[in-house]
Amino acid sequence: MTEAELKKPQESLQDRLAQVVELLHRHKLVESLAHRQEGEHQERVENLVQRQNLVELQRKLDDLHPADIAHILEALPLDERLTVWQLVKAERDGDILLEVSDAVRETLIADMDDHEILAATRDLDADELADLAPELPRDVVHELMESLDAQQRERVRSALSYEEDQVGALMDFEMVTIRDDVTLEVVLRYLRRLKELPGHTDKLFVVDHDGVLTGVLPIKRLLVNDPEKRVAEVMASDPVTFHPDEDAHHAAQAFERYDLISAPVVDRNDKLIGRLTIDEMVDLIREESENEVLNMAGLREEEDIFASVWKSLRNRWAWLAVNLVTAFLASRVIGVFEGSIEKLVALAALMPIVAGIGGNSGNQTITMIVRAMALDQVSTGNTMRLLRKELGVGLINGLVWGGVIGAVAWYLYGDWALGAVMTGAMTLNLLLAALMGVLIPMTLVRLGRDPAMGASVMITAMTDSGGFFIFLGLATLFLM
Amino acid sequence: MTEAELKKPQESLQDRLAQVVELLHRHKLVESLAHRQEGEHQERVENLVQRQNLVELQRKLDDLHPADIAHILEALPLDERLTVWQLVKAERDGDILLEVSDAVRETLIADMDDHEILAATRDLDADELADLAPELPRDVVHELMESLDAQQRERVRSALSYEEDQVGALMDFEMVTIRDDVTLEVVLRYLRRLKELPGHTDKLFVVDHDGVLTGVLPIKRLLVNDPEKRVAEVMASDPVTFHPDEDAHHAAQAFERYDLISAPVVDRNDKLIGRLTIDEMVDLIREESENEVLNMAGLREEEDIFASVWKSLRNRWAWLAVNLVTAFLASRVIGVFEGSIEKLVALAALMPIVAGIGGNSGNQTITMIVRAMALDQVSTGNTMRLLRKELGVGLINGLVWGGVIGAVAWYLYGDWALGAVMTGAMTLNLLLAALMGVLIPMTLVRLGRDPAMGASVMITAMTDSGGFFIFLGLATLFLM
Repeated sequence: MTEAELKKPQESLQDRLAQVVELLHRHKLVESLAHRQEGEHQERVENLVQRQNLVELQRKLDDLHPADIAHILEALPLDERLTVWQLVKAERDGDILLEVSDAVRETLIADMDDHEILAATRDLDADELADLAPELPRDVVHELMESLDAQQRERVRSALSYEEDQVGALMDFEMVTIRDDVTLEVVLRYLRRLKELPGHTDKLFVVDHDGVLTGVLPIKRLLVNDPEKRVAEVMASDPVTFHPDEDAHHAAQAFERYDLISAPVVDRNDKLIGRLTIDEMVDLIREESENEVLNMAGLREEEDIFASVWKSLRNRWAWLAVNLVTAFLASRVIGVFEGSIEKLVALAALMPIVAGIGGNSGNQTITMIVRAMALDQVSTGNTMRLLRKELGVGLINGLVWGGVIGAVAWYLYGDWALGAVMTGAMTLNLLLAALMGVLIPMTLVRLGRDPAMGASVMITAMTDSGGFFIFLGLATLFLM
Repeated sequence: MTEAELKKPQESLQDRLAQVVELLHRHKLVESLAHRQEGEHQERVENLVQRQNLVELQRKLDDLHPADIAHILEALPLDERLTVWQLVKAERDGDILLEVSDAVRETLIADMDDHEILAATRDLDADELADLAPELPRDVVHELMESLDAQQRERVRSALSYEEDQVGALMDFEMVTIRDDVTLEVVLRYLRRLKELPGHTDKLFVVDHDGVLTGVLPIKRLLVNDPEKRVAEVMASDPVTFHPDEDAHHAAQAFERYDLISAPVVDRNDKLIGRLTIDEMVDLIREESENEVLNMAGLREEEDIFASVWKSLRNRWAWLAVNLVTAFLASRVIGVFEGSIEKLVALAALMPIVAGIGGNSGNQTITMIVRAMALDQVSTGNTMRLLRKELGVGLINGLVWGGVIGAVAWYLYGDWALGAVMTGAMTLNLLLAALMGVLIPMTLVRLGRDPAMGASVMITAMTDSGGFFIFLGLATLFLM
């Protein structure tokens, strides 16, 4: 896209979405009228109105940037989404497919026949094809690969050989390379012959005869230096580089930390094989934080907000089932103390307070630790220090809030011993919450797992069973 | 910084952090030895070793990028953090202060006297000064402002006049402006005279005599077009622009969507007043998602992971107190049914399952909705459709998992009616969870609040009280 194509960006996306929705609804209204009134003349008129609506909608869509259309598709329920998708010009399909989320992309591809998919993906670059390939029908991928030249095919294969979270899967191949023995004047003339530079070109890559990266020439330096100077004098000879098998997460952190716009990707022999750009990194940063939120809530993956009930169930069942088992265990803990509850029924009313506060406090701790781990601020080496701090917070919270609730219990049930047991149980459960809030993510990391993985479900399980056991246990010991 | 300054970026940040920590610990070990053994000769030797350690540590720090030092400072407990901070060269203090989080910045500034702060901030740009100003002592800010020229002072004032989340607070003033009636050749010569271009210069801003923005000249176009052409022929005349009072959140979305690197900020008369760059937007995107996670867990703000116990308490108390009140209310709901529990103590053991599953399921729903709202994918207009879907998911989950648990309860307590009550209560509570999971964030948005605000605490409160009431109520109706 060129900047000039971005019409009226000040008109907010929400406005544009609203306009599209309105046109869609007008279209549907007419459609349902046409179904009801079967008179032939009537029908012809309705058809005309309807066609006009669609034409207006199509004109609207043609004006929009692919990223905006992607956004609108994501915000529409399935039936309306497909109506809009059919109105989008075929040659823009590829760009839009690249922009939508995986969940929505699936619904769009399911609506296209092989022929349409081939047409949509024909003009894409190797790295873009590799992005889409896993979700395309096998036959189509095969046919697409056949149509590529040897170099392109090799690039798609190479990109597909990396894991989703490796640098190799995110790099593109649109790098402009130069030699270090020419003058800047020659470089400027060379660029002019290219007619167009790839997006995000803030530096040119300097390579030797074997394609080995020897430095980078930032465009900034190309512009301010004397054109008579040679590239070797002006280039930065020790740039930030990445390897294709590196963790993309680390690459994104480096982009953020060093304010990079593009960076070369080299193999083990320092041969230039691709480049990373900030736009891919921004998407990654966004995705990462989203996954953290989803994982903590026990959701498996991004869910299309208008996904069918069945799809949603599949996404959510895993952790609900885990939760069911842990809730059942907590229930059995209570079952052990049924005798005590029978004697003092107040215990049944008070026990969820102990469990609830523990869960809330534990969630706060685990959220802090998971976040700090995601930012590489804590390692398993800090465990003891963090534990001391969180236990301190838990102890004070337990004594203060436990004291308050203990006093209330004493007042309500006229039994000071019950109040004391309440305070003691709250304090112990908050200490347990602090302990588990630190240990669960640390242990998950030691086991090589994502520390956010169902963190909320796990900590709640601990503080529920633990809270019931501590409270009912203390009550049985001291009040029976 | 220049690219060449980034030494060995492949050496991971964790490694560098580990090296610094090792040097710090060696330093401390020697210090504690020196305290114990008071012999004068001994002391001199120890001092020597210690000084060597510090020199090595200082050399290590001098090699590091300010962003890396900032990261290390954030990952260190307070005492070690201040030791490292004192070793950092004074002229780098300003850059590092800009990189650290607010919570850590506060601890560093508290350790500096006015003189040091002035020295650290002397060389900063107007927008950078404005970033730091709110956290600096009043006298220092006053003195700093005095030392600036009129234009700089005006810029700092202007930046400070915007809210933290407005475009005006994030823009910088380092834009390169040109006229549209000159040739590209003239522009190239002009740039060469500048000696250096500001970071993230991917486009030049074209203004008329009154400073009104008439277009932008992407560097890419400057490079590939014939130098004889005039700027007006080559420039993009309808660029994406922002207003200083616009929501920075929307600007970040636009940067992400249109893959921007820099963009002009104009006032109501289209006069160019500053520019936004992708690095600020990346920081904002990162912050936004972090706040979402923190808000959902009921944490008020970013917390320095090594903050004192008292600071942590302050951050966490607000929502804990809310949770305490809601837990107390849930407890009173149970209190109402104490008679029923006394007759059938199994109710006490089973009721947390109903509440727990409701909480878990409600958290999944609310997480989905809050996320989709953050991405502008749903508005309050979609409420009915989303509600239908979530109620569908809740109904099926309730019948399936409620059925399972009902069967288990029947088996355990040999009472089919108890099992049926269990299934019915689970289903109703999951429907309540779905209803509240959609309505809570929608209502918060209608009230102009952040939909993530303590979402988790609120939904859990609803599903706890609701679950107890539904289960014990059904049990009292059908089993007593």
